[in-house]
Amino acid sequence: MERIEHRACFGGWQDVYRHHSSVLDCATNVAVYLPPQARQGRLPVLYWLSGLTCTEQNFITKAGAQRYAAEHGVIVVALDTSPRGEGVADDPAYDLGQGAGFYLNATEPPWAAHYRMRDYVADELPALIEANFPATDARGISGHSMGGHGALTIALAHPGRYRSVSAFSPIVAPAQVPWGEKAFAAYLGHDRAAWRCHDATELLRTARERLPLLVDQGEADEFLATQLRPELLREACTRANHPLTLRLHPGYDHSYYFVASFIGEHIAWHARAMKG
Amino acid sequence: MERIEHRACFGGWQDVYRHHSSVLDCATNVAVYLPPQARQGRLPVLYWLSGLTCTEQNFITKAGAQRYAAEHGVIVVALDTSPRGEGVADDPAYDLGQGAGFYLNATEPPWAAHYRMRDYVADELPALIEANFPATDARGISGHSMGGHGALTIALAHPGRYRSVSAFSPIVAPAQVPWGEKAFAAYLGHDRAAWRCHDATELLRTARERLPLLVDQGEADEFLATQLRPELLREACTRANHPLTLRLHPGYDHSYYFVASFIGEHIAWHARAMKG
Repeated sequence: MERIEHRACFGGWQDVYRHHSSVLDCATNVAVYLPPQARQGRLPVLYWLSGLTCTEQNFITKAGAQRYAAEHGVIVVALDTSPRGEGVADDPAYDLGQGAGFYLNATEPPWAAHYRMRDYVADELPALIEANFPATDARGISGHSMGGHGALTIALAHPGRYRSVSAFSPIVAPAQVPWGEKAFAAYLGHDRAAWRCHDATELLRTARERLPLLVDQGEADEFLATQLRPELLREACTRANHPLTLRLHPGYDHSYYFVASFIGEHIAWHARAMKG
Repeated sequence: MERIEHRACFGGWQDVYRHHSSVLDCATNVAVYLPPQARQGRLPVLYWLSGLTCTEQNFITKAGAQRYAAEHGVIVVALDTSPRGEGVADDPAYDLGQGAGFYLNATEPPWAAHYRMRDYVADELPALIEANFPATDARGISGHSMGGHGALTIALAHPGRYRSVSAFSPIVAPAQVPWGEKAFAAYLGHDRAAWRCHDATELLRTARERLPLLVDQGEADEFLATQLRPELLREACTRANHPLTLRLHPGYDHSYYFVASFIGEHIAWHARAMKG
């Protein structure tokens, strides 16, 4: 892992590393915030998955999470939203290809060669972080929009892997909304049975673990009714008797101003679960 | 004033307005954070001046100041760093022309027509804010790098106008460093006597008001020795018996990660002075 950024922040360090991912078969960037407590011992790790068009930079520059990570003694890892590079398949649209990996393992050409974000997030990256940083194996996962979808589906599909999961403005039912239908058809093909393991509302039907879900959603979010549809998550959790805290916030939109306003409560919530 | 952005943030609103400035003789953007307390009554206003290459966006997306403004009940106004537009003189360099106004009133062609940031900051903008928002006339001023220079010089040159002033990584002696020498020669001409009223260390010689200065500086700042030289501010304050709190922070660089780490303490300090 080559360190390409190193900046003091709230008494700790906001670093960015570049490494070759064998799962993605390309180089990728990963941001690691080490709070001041990392000098004294091993700490739990919160993984952050960003939304469409983002890189590892959006969260670390805009969310203001470092303040809370330093307060609670949590390492925060923010990753890119897809494989990238010249040899990696892409599409001119903002919602497919590079910057739009949807945190799944693609099975269709030309995507299958590199687009394996689910395995990267759930397996390769935690192993790398726990081997190279003062990290325990207590893991939390969160994200925004497409990244909220990633956090919910990856946590639900890997019982025992995470102590806590939360999401901001997640795509809760990608198999039923335009962003997800387009991406899943491209990455997974047209057989909708293969989509189920990448849809949080479907995964809740068979979830073996009752990991409580914390979800924040802005009521002025421009994608609320067409792409996000939090009521489908509420119905799925009610049906499955799965614990859900869904908070609807009047006035808030889909931007990082919303994430910044509530990331402190999410980090406190993850810290309690990961240290408990 | 036309509102062009309106985003809920920490219980208040991060807005951006566009208006025609008669001082700058062009349209300009100004960001206004209204904390939740603005619904109940008039509040003091902290003016933020950004550094080279910035617009009104950098501070509002990266500094995380809204959390503290909401905590302390302070309106925060962040402005652009120069006049802009097709009819406004410019230079291809990053440190002259648009994005590099240096918070002065230019006297030399082609700059004198629009580059009047000092009068815009000190006169036109506060009048506009106090007429259009629930603002008192208690004003504070702060900024980063070129904006730290702007905050210090404008406060020192306008006794009674501000209740508080602070700066992050300021250019404290522009007449003695490359950034300032280049800009002042272009904007003010080669007679160095005309530069004095735009140099904080020179203004301290004749300051009529003992407004305490709070200055934070990172020791790993890449511009520390060549452009910023905080020791010259310390010497000028000692010579003038002017109150200065200069804090040097090991490890911190020139980025917004540094500003974000300490902006909370600055806002608390301004709030105490503006409400006291």
